[in-house]
Amino acid sequence: MTADLAIAAKANHDGDAEPIYRESLVKLMRAHDAYGAWEKKSDEEILQGFVLTKEQRRAIPIIGEPDSKVLWRIEVFYTAVSYAVTRRTGLDATPIVKLSGEGFGRVVITVGRLVVLSRALRDVHRFGFDSTNALTSAGESMVAESLDAIERFPTVAGGTE
Amino acid sequence: MTADLAIAAKANHDGDAEPIYRESLVKLMRAHDAYGAWEKKSDEEILQGFVLTKEQRRAIPIIGEPDSKVLWRIEVFYTAVSYAVTRRTGLDATPIVKLSGEGFGRVVITVGRLVVLSRALRDVHRFGFDSTNALTSAGESMVAESLDAIERFPTVAGGTE
Repeated sequence: MTADLAIAAKANHDGDAEPIYRESLVKLMRAHDAYGAWEKKSDEEILQGFVLTKEQRRAIPIIGEPDSKVLWRIEVFYTAVSYAVTRRTGLDATPIVKLSGEGFGRVVITVGRLVVLSRALRDVHRFGFDSTNALTSAGESMVAESLDAIERFPTVAGGTE
Repeated sequence: MTADLAIAAKANHDGDAEPIYRESLVKLMRAHDAYGAWEKKSDEEILQGFVLTKEQRRAIPIIGEPDSKVLWRIEVFYTAVSYAVTRRTGLDATPIVKLSGEGFGRVVITVGRLVVLSRALRDVHRFGFDSTNALTSAGESMVAESLDAIERFPTVAGGTE
């Protein structure tokens, strides 16, 4: 079974350049839109929430608790990576985002017993991207990195035991 | 190198029944004792903080934010698992404890690309053990489970790449 899954993952990964990350992120964002505030917004407009210009970034103080909207965006950003991996492979990918109050943190995405992605977070207060393109390519490359890990260790990713 | 490490891990694990978890937990607890309040306390007395009788447990309300001392004890409990694994194997084990305000959470301990331990947490408000023996055997068995995982997947545990 794990071998089949790995082959499926590989096939999807190699053959299919469609931007799965962007689509996954938009789906998750819209799923949180309980009041329909974004119904008339385009995908691009929704993703604009992740964009910070250099000037905006510098203007954010890095003392005290990060803004709760920023914390939420970080959660959604990495959850979308994990969601995209699940959609590509059929395997259950789980993100854990642990943030300290000081603007530091760590993210780990696991599939079975495999750590497919691990990142230290800094400057959490200023989390953001120069453009929606920069946002989605960051996400796509994390998805690709995760799929590579699964290809390399299919047995470890295939089961929790 | 990874093969050597795995063999070392196995040798330690099989040959050595000394209670590494208990010792690791006490070390971590004492390391946090910045004001020397516990200097004259025995190890057993220090571990008593983790003991809750059934009656005490029932008396704790499970609404609202869990007590900060409980959150700290959960962190230390799992950090000690990870510390014991590092002492046994020489490999860098990292815990991530993510708790929601509602008393649920998740713990993952990773070594390299390997998830050596993963637990869902419930009833965080009432985290505690019937006795210090129950506490340390819970810890020891998590250490053993983690070492088993490393023995089974030494390559995955041996490197982050």
